[in-house]
Amino acid sequence: MTADTKLDEFERIARYFAPLAAPEALGLLDDVALIEGPSGVQYVLKTDAIVEGVHFLPDDPADQVAQKLLRVNLSDLAAKGASPVGYLLTTALPHRCDELWLERFSAGLARDQAEFGIALLGGDSVATPGPITLSLAAVGKVEQGKAILRRGAQPGHDVFVSGTLGDAALGLKVLQGGLAELSETERAHLVDRYRLPRPRLALGLELAGTASAMLDVSDGLVADLDHLCAASAVGAVVEAAALPLSPGATAALAAEPGLFASVLGGGDDYELLFTAPTASRIALDRLAANTGIAVTRIGRIVDAPRQVRVIDAQGRAVKVASRGYRHF
Amino acid sequence: MTADTKLDEFERIARYFAPLAAPEALGLLDDVALIEGPSGVQYVLKTDAIVEGVHFLPDDPADQVAQKLLRVNLSDLAAKGASPVGYLLTTALPHRCDELWLERFSAGLARDQAEFGIALLGGDSVATPGPITLSLAAVGKVEQGKAILRRGAQPGHDVFVSGTLGDAALGLKVLQGGLAELSETERAHLVDRYRLPRPRLALGLELAGTASAMLDVSDGLVADLDHLCAASAVGAVVEAAALPLSPGATAALAAEPGLFASVLGGGDDYELLFTAPTASRIALDRLAANTGIAVTRIGRIVDAPRQVRVIDAQGRAVKVASRGYRHF
Repeated sequence: MTADTKLDEFERIARYFAPLAAPEALGLLDDVALIEGPSGVQYVLKTDAIVEGVHFLPDDPADQVAQKLLRVNLSDLAAKGASPVGYLLTTALPHRCDELWLERFSAGLARDQAEFGIALLGGDSVATPGPITLSLAAVGKVEQGKAILRRGAQPGHDVFVSGTLGDAALGLKVLQGGLAELSETERAHLVDRYRLPRPRLALGLELAGTASAMLDVSDGLVADLDHLCAASAVGAVVEAAALPLSPGATAALAAEPGLFASVLGGGDDYELLFTAPTASRIALDRLAANTGIAVTRIGRIVDAPRQVRVIDAQGRAVKVASRGYRHF
Repeated sequence: MTADTKLDEFERIARYFAPLAAPEALGLLDDVALIEGPSGVQYVLKTDAIVEGVHFLPDDPADQVAQKLLRVNLSDLAAKGASPVGYLLTTALPHRCDELWLERFSAGLARDQAEFGIALLGGDSVATPGPITLSLAAVGKVEQGKAILRRGAQPGHDVFVSGTLGDAALGLKVLQGGLAELSETERAHLVDRYRLPRPRLALGLELAGTASAMLDVSDGLVADLDHLCAASAVGAVVEAAALPLSPGATAALAAEPGLFASVLGGGDDYELLFTAPTASRIALDRLAANTGIAVTRIGRIVDAPRQVRVIDAQGRAVKVASRGYRHF
């Protein structure tokens, strides 16, 4: 390898970590592993880390940091159609994280444990001279063979997304001093969406047997749809005008149309992105009504391996500035 | 809580995290959780993190850092009498960790996967502006009800330790420029013990049904025996003269008797510390011979809750300067 080779995050994983993977890791393509549980059950194992200054801001409240850590992992369980069992927690904390910080942090965990029906299984607590670094390994469970993977999308299937897109990325801009033209309420909504993901566990559970492929939007819509298409060996066409936006995001885009890039690639949405045969449309409407979570059809799967295109209302290609967040 | 209250690592865990624990977490007293697996099997879940500058040195070779990360977790599985199944890996890496670093890091993992029969189940790979921070969650398995816990020690039981004590702590001193009086071979042995723990998996497996309580020595002999005694509601008396030392450690102590503190509380030993009824002595001798791992009787359990005393050959109390490493 020459010194100027520079692999991105996913190339690094493919080159250095995929060869180490067990069969249960599904080739590291699904961001989870499935291992055999008690009769008729599979455990879903998932780990995600968040770092101060990268995934959250130094002055984000400790309880919400804890909730974000737990919820980004729960979102992955939701995307498999799994229900939560428990989690292991690793905290690497600088000495400035005092007992008041810990009290708030654990209060956030307690709140979410009650809300999502999950409890702590163990952990490790170490000191660090660096930023707050938190890692969580979540255990979920699914009925044997019922986990929804990324690889079942087929040409002709619809593409759906839950909730709204772009809010979290726009919320980060608010925290960085941007979007002053929005109302107080709109700004607060966007910030809340940045700080507190909503793992769509109830919806995920209901989608077993209906969704043909699924993942959660964490890196960004286009990037994550790329992942789904790669795993399914298909392509996708996304209709820009169909993307679901909150009132705050709509107002932000009206003021600054360039912010549409945040909707396509801002990431941190933690919404479910999934595909289903067109015959499922009515069932999905009912399902959305039952769970109270909006489900929007945003495009379709096509027979064009790995290519994700975004088109406007006239069918013209929309330029995608950034496909999504990459750590490297 | 007043601002000047200062809890140590274990008090922090007891106050803020124990209330969050699931029943499967065994009160967070065993450093692992046990969850139901396929028929007749329980999974053992364990997580441990290591931080550059805290658990390893910035110029430690990347492959050995990877092996240390894996092995400190495997050591906890060994201490339960469990065998390895797989692991989740979280890497938070600064941008200076280039592809050469990753190549070495993953080569270290590959080597140990082959040696210990474990494979990667998944992970997360994030960037950090801070030090290298690595977290691993290991999954092991034991026969239902056969996990060796910390809480079975009873007055009259012997206390045993595998291998030798103090080598890793002395190896760190060598890397910091100390112990110049030792031979090249002795110094290399101690450094190797610091960098590469030996998880005693084969011995741990054999101890099921014999050991009444067990853990691995990571914080330090006295600190970890404290943990075992607390979980079992007993005390212990350790005979200083009985502690097993390598030739390098023996030479170091001959030159600087004060280094005995490293044997009692230096930590990073990753040896098995366990108790057993006196009737097991012959069985244990045979077991040590079969596995090729030395097992040394170092003391006995007494009816004095939570108290660990170290005595010299004349039965006089040996002062314990530091009971073991604490992060906070």
